[in-house]
Amino acid sequence: MDDTYYMQQALALAEEAARDGEVPVGCIIVRKDQIVGRGRNRRETDKTALGHAEIEAIGDACKNLGGWRLWECTMYVTLEPCPMCAGAIINARIPRVVVGAKDEKSGACGSVCDLFSMDFNHKPQVEFGLLEAEAQQLLTAFFCQLREKLKDRPKWRKPE
Amino acid sequence: MDDTYYMQQALALAEEAARDGEVPVGCIIVRKDQIVGRGRNRRETDKTALGHAEIEAIGDACKNLGGWRLWECTMYVTLEPCPMCAGAIINARIPRVVVGAKDEKSGACGSVCDLFSMDFNHKPQVEFGLLEAEAQQLLTAFFCQLREKLKDRPKWRKPE
Repeated sequence: MDDTYYMQQALALAEEAARDGEVPVGCIIVRKDQIVGRGRNRRETDKTALGHAEIEAIGDACKNLGGWRLWECTMYVTLEPCPMCAGAIINARIPRVVVGAKDEKSGACGSVCDLFSMDFNHKPQVEFGLLEAEAQQLLTAFFCQLREKLKDRPKWRKPE
Repeated sequence: MDDTYYMQQALALAEEAARDGEVPVGCIIVRKDQIVGRGRNRRETDKTALGHAEIEAIGDACKNLGGWRLWECTMYVTLEPCPMCAGAIINARIPRVVVGAKDEKSGACGSVCDLFSMDFNHKPQVEFGLLEAEAQQLLTAFFCQLREKLKDRPKWRKPE
C-alpha cells in the first residue's frame, strides 16, 4: 500500500469524528506496511483536552507494539499537529510524518512554530499536502454546519 | 493550603515514580484549593510515549471535573514541561503553572523554546523555582544510581 491509501484511511477516521460532532481530524500510524495505530478527534465526546487524533493513534501504536519508541513508523494525519501532538511525535521518536492540510492557527510543524526544527533530541521529517483538498473540505464543511447551527440558537437576552 | 504544600505533593509523586524505576517527575492540579488531578511519570512501566506526569494529571483532572477546559486550575510540576506537556497545558487552558526545576534539554516553557509566549490561543503564566533544589536532588540521585547500575552491566564483546 502507498501513502495515498494510508491517508485515505486517516480521512475515513476524520469523517467518523465529524459524524460525532467532533472537529474532523484522523490519524493512522504504519509500520512495515501494517497499520499499528488509529486515532480520531474525540475531545467533546470524551471531555478531555488530550482527545486529539494523534494522541489516540500514538497510544494505540505503543500498546500494539509493546514499547514507547515508534522509530520504524510513519504517521499519516489529516491536519497539521498542534504543539501537544508534535511534542508526542518527538517523544515517540516517529521518524516520518505525512500531513494533509496546514493549520495556520495551531500548527506546530511550520505554521505557528516548527518544533521539528528546534533543538530537541529528535527531529521528525515532515511532508505536507497529501490529499490536502479532501482534508480541508471536511474541515470547511464541518465549521460551516457549526455556524449554521449556532445561528439558529436563541440569542441570550438581558432579563428586563 | 499554599503553593509549597501542593509542590510537596507533586514531589511525593515524583518519589513514587523513582521507586518504580521511572525518571522522578510528579504533577498535581488544583482548583479552588482542592486537588483535582494527580500524575507521575510511567513511561517505562506503561510502555507509552504519552506516559508523562502532566498528561496523566490533565487526563485525571478532565475526568474529575467532567470537561476539557481547566481554566480555574493551577498546575504544580516538579520539572519544566516538554513540548507535549506544554502543548497539553495550552489545550486544557490552564492559566497558571508552577514549576520546580528547569529542563535545559527538553523544556518548552523557556529552556529549549517557550511555547507559552508564542502565538497560540492561550498563554499560561509560568513561575519557576519552587522547591527547585528538592526536585533537582531527586533527578540527580536517580540518574546517578542509573549510571552505577549500567556500569556493572557486562560489556558486549565482539564474538571471536
